[in-house]
Amino acid sequence: MADHLSSKEHYETLLDKYDTWMFDCDGVLWHGDRPIDGAVEVLDILRKRGKRLLFVTNNASKSRKSYKGKFDQLGVEAKVDEIYGSAYAAAVYISSVMKLPKNKKVYVIGMTGIEEELREEGVSFIGGTDPADNTLEPFSLVNFTLDPDVGAVLCGLDVKINYTKLSKAFQYLTRNPGCQFLVTNDDSTYPSADGLLPGAGSISAPLRFALEKDPISIGKPAKTMLDCIQAKVHFNPERTIMVGDRLNTDILFGQAGGLATLLVLTGISSKEDITGPNASSIVPKYVTQSIGDLRVVRSS
Amino acid sequence: MADHLSSKEHYETLLDKYDTWMFDCDGVLWHGDRPIDGAVEVLDILRKRGKRLLFVTNNASKSRKSYKGKFDQLGVEAKVDEIYGSAYAAAVYISSVMKLPKNKKVYVIGMTGIEEELREEGVSFIGGTDPADNTLEPFSLVNFTLDPDVGAVLCGLDVKINYTKLSKAFQYLTRNPGCQFLVTNDDSTYPSADGLLPGAGSISAPLRFALEKDPISIGKPAKTMLDCIQAKVHFNPERTIMVGDRLNTDILFGQAGGLATLLVLTGISSKEDITGPNASSIVPKYVTQSIGDLRVVRSS
Repeated sequence: MADHLSSKEHYETLLDKYDTWMFDCDGVLWHGDRPIDGAVEVLDILRKRGKRLLFVTNNASKSRKSYKGKFDQLGVEAKVDEIYGSAYAAAVYISSVMKLPKNKKVYVIGMTGIEEELREEGVSFIGGTDPADNTLEPFSLVNFTLDPDVGAVLCGLDVKINYTKLSKAFQYLTRNPGCQFLVTNDDSTYPSADGLLPGAGSISAPLRFALEKDPISIGKPAKTMLDCIQAKVHFNPERTIMVGDRLNTDILFGQAGGLATLLVLTGISSKEDITGPNASSIVPKYVTQSIGDLRVVRSS
Repeated sequence: MADHLSSKEHYETLLDKYDTWMFDCDGVLWHGDRPIDGAVEVLDILRKRGKRLLFVTNNASKSRKSYKGKFDQLGVEAKVDEIYGSAYAAAVYISSVMKLPKNKKVYVIGMTGIEEELREEGVSFIGGTDPADNTLEPFSLVNFTLDPDVGAVLCGLDVKINYTKLSKAFQYLTRNPGCQFLVTNDDSTYPSADGLLPGAGSISAPLRFALEKDPISIGKPAKTMLDCIQAKVHFNPERTIMVGDRLNTDILFGQAGGLATLLVLTGISSKEDITGPNASSIVPKYVTQSIGDLRVVRSS
């Protein structure tokens, strides 16, 4: 059973126990363009106490650099190298783990975030924001030339998803031998400021369905994301805590990596998901209503 | 094990045993815009011998009326009331089985075929080919008004699939109590004249993934399609044969309805699918290379 934190002593103990604090962002630090009450203050407290902060997001629509802009805009202090996004992790996976040969390329279903990270890692790509692929004009195989150098399809959230992109990706995955099917993350929904919308997992679902196979998923809860962080940052898992709002991504991710986990109830997962009759089998170590609750330690 | 037909005697026996012949179209009678060699001749033979012909297709991009145009164009004789499409069956399901109240409407992800059939059945709808929903412009919930009268989402093949349509459908399915999730068919791929493309099942996959639930599927292999035919045509299942190219739609459909089944190898399923080491558990009663093989009976 999860520890429900509520008193100043609870939060003080938490601060004593963990040196590295990994945060999911959407639903934990902000909702869309609105910071969650107290979040900025709590991050400030953690920094002042010498904690290492890492921001671990499945959001692949932005590169780390432009995601940093979002932190700035919301008044949340962060450095680019504290930010780990699934687009960045996917680019690192393709260049360093999959070791895609330099003469090969990636077909992208996704937005600028993926493109920027692939470019930074020196990975060639086609598709993505290319106007030729961002169209509702009919797609015909007669006018399509299969590029034999496409060795992977990478799919993330793409709000310009269309039949041309899906059809091209399907051709590469079925006709280019060995072409890998990668997704930045499996999130079924995306928490916009005004409500839930289909997420990256849903965008890749047509390909999963047509291929009858699951892709390699990079973001939380997959271990690939943690491997990517561990390659850059040294931390002791026993003194690290993952703070998130989704049981099946954030909390599962923390558990799989041997980290402590703190569920906040300001996002996707609700109290019923951990205590109700249909409670999830994923149980966080700690639960608190909001990250803002930790402000209470300030008065100490 | 399936009976592999090859001699004139085999085909003569088949003609003697079955009075009603149900045909899938794409991959059986034609490929895209090319009729399959001998198909027209075989249908002609069957008609001359007094067989009842029914064309049972999951294609929902066309209404029966416009599908009849395709038969005409390819020189294949057919009457509108011999044609059963999944768009028609979906419209009948909504009006007669689900009995959607007259003041309610359907949100459509699909093409003109669905719209025409809904209109014929007197079912109100929004979405579909409405230019406002056929856009790659950003979708925001701020500019979206939930129509409380949407009582069902019907999804078929839609080559103008986009994030606006998916997001709106997702809102109706999650926010309108009791809103039904229907799909014309589950076909993962669509056999265009020049190769496979993502099919109707793949178009609805984002919603399945985001909702974590399967829709009510109308087309083959679902029984809904057979119910729809049975409501209009009297036939003896024991003297009826379903001819198709897909084990998991056509052949399964025939079997579920207690019909004999004939697999042709001119479409999706291959000889390996019925005899190889990874053969399907769905075994047709008969197999022949092509519907054109039945021409051999003409010389009798």
